[in-house]
Amino acid sequence: MEELNAGVVLAMAAEAPDGIVIVDSEGLIRYWNQGAERIFGYTAAEITGRGLDVIIPEKHRKRHDDGFTAAMASGTSRYGADDLLAVPALTADGTTVSIEFSVVLLTDADGKASHVGAVIRDVTARRAQEKEIRRRLLETAPAGTTP
Amino acid sequence: MEELNAGVVLAMAAEAPDGIVIVDSEGLIRYWNQGAERIFGYTAAEITGRGLDVIIPEKHRKRHDDGFTAAMASGTSRYGADDLLAVPALTADGTTVSIEFSVVLLTDADGKASHVGAVIRDVTARRAQEKEIRRRLLETAPAGTTP
Repeated sequence: MEELNAGVVLAMAAEAPDGIVIVDSEGLIRYWNQGAERIFGYTAAEITGRGLDVIIPEKHRKRHDDGFTAAMASGTSRYGADDLLAVPALTADGTTVSIEFSVVLLTDADGKASHVGAVIRDVTARRAQEKEIRRRLLETAPAGTTP
Repeated sequence: MEELNAGVVLAMAAEAPDGIVIVDSEGLIRYWNQGAERIFGYTAAEITGRGLDVIIPEKHRKRHDDGFTAAMASGTSRYGADDLLAVPALTADGTTVSIEFSVVLLTDADGKASHVGAVIRDVTARRAQEKEIRRRLLETAPAGTTP
């Protein structure tokens, strides 16, 4: 089996249309690929070193901080490989987008949590469609029969 | 701005719950992360060097091959950063899953297409829910009023 050049994998991560973001154990952004630039409107240069608060709506910040602190302390995340998290997020121009993301907790050689990574997909268009379908379902169904 | 160790980005790509797959210019699998192992049931060791046909349902193979050949010849993909592709895929145990994926065409220093990468998410559960909602919408709406 031919070994793939690590440079190809790094190029793939950098250029992927999905956002790939890595924060360090203090919650500061250390990696922000082109997909993240596209989704959130911040360049890697301007957002690296900042906290994620810049893209987290205020009412969600405490929940994020609590979860992050717990994951760092325990070295485990409450989210598994099958979990996709769905939240609103703020972009550079002030609009709110809907994102779905998976999370991976990266550990150092001692098994201590060192970074948290996320693969992020913008699902704003789909969420709007789902809302519209739910509205129509409620509208057309006889009273008392819809969930 | 502190440079992130490339090893952290490589660990992130390797361990991401989403599938990250890279094929070379001949369409042979050269990278298959843990997410891809989880979604499709093949280990990297057993699938590296094989073509993608192993996970593409037979009736979709020609379309995939034609698109792949065209992208390799032109050095451009017809899919942009905003495009999410949705297709059925085959897993190692013979079941069919629904996947959504983004595509990135990687080029060498001469601008020639060298690899194609995909970030793949298993959306089987969501597809089943959508189908159920559509069924209920058709069932409850007065005849002639639904799309």
